[in-house]
Amino acid sequence: MSDVEYTLRPVGRVESPLTDPATAPRQGDEGAPESWLVFAPEVAPAVRGLRPGEEALVVTWLDRARRDVLTVHPRGDTSRPETGVFSTRSPHRPNPIGLHRVRLLAIDGLRVRVADLEALDGTPVLDVKPVLGEPAER
Amino acid sequence: MSDVEYTLRPVGRVESPLTDPATAPRQGDEGAPESWLVFAPEVAPAVRGLRPGEEALVVTWLDRARRDVLTVHPRGDTSRPETGVFSTRSPHRPNPIGLHRVRLLAIDGLRVRVADLEALDGTPVLDVKPVLGEPAER
Repeated sequence: MSDVEYTLRPVGRVESPLTDPATAPRQGDEGAPESWLVFAPEVAPAVRGLRPGEEALVVTWLDRARRDVLTVHPRGDTSRPETGVFSTRSPHRPNPIGLHRVRLLAIDGLRVRVADLEALDGTPVLDVKPVLGEPAER
Repeated sequence: MSDVEYTLRPVGRVESPLTDPATAPRQGDEGAPESWLVFAPEVAPAVRGLRPGEEALVVTWLDRARRDVLTVHPRGDTSRPETGVFSTRSPHRPNPIGLHRVRLLAIDGLRVRVADLEALDGTPVLDVKPVLGEPAER
């Protein structure tokens, strides 16, 4: 791979009832409980503008994933042929970045209540973005 | 921010006619030219499974972005009030991760031809994922 490396510094953490990777839903629309995004005080200005009722993309670092996995059986089903991780949603991949489409329920300063987030408790948050494919108003 | 840091290692690079940030389209559907994703040999198995005609999310590291920007005027329009970067698509943000919805046009080994990618030439590629919100078949 490239010799160049880049450094991520988390801007917050997920607070969630989900603690066990084995039983957590694989996708946010498969039964994820409500949870919190808890931002670091240093990024408070970046949080301004998020509004309850909106949808957003949360970008996380899947810190419990393996980075040496290049092929997987889709959804862990060994009856299905292995395929490259770039065409799957497996958390295990060279750069384990998680993308989660969530609904913002409430904003309380640095704490943002969200629905449909399947990330485990303690997962580092890297970024929040508007949903792709909608008009680029902002 | 958190004391913890994570290290990204690019899995490839963008080859694109776009070289000037000032004139590049802001979104992929605003006139991006066809370009290539060029993957490192080490991740060849991860590329297997990508197919022409499919759509995919390309995750990049916006290496020419500023990381100390927390609020912006949406789309650079100073007549609009500043808002936190988490509710904008500004490249300038604490972790400048780019998300690009592209169409895969052709696969030639480690080179993948794509449409609708607004990334600049040389932009590091971090990951490729299936489009969000479609059935999680893989």
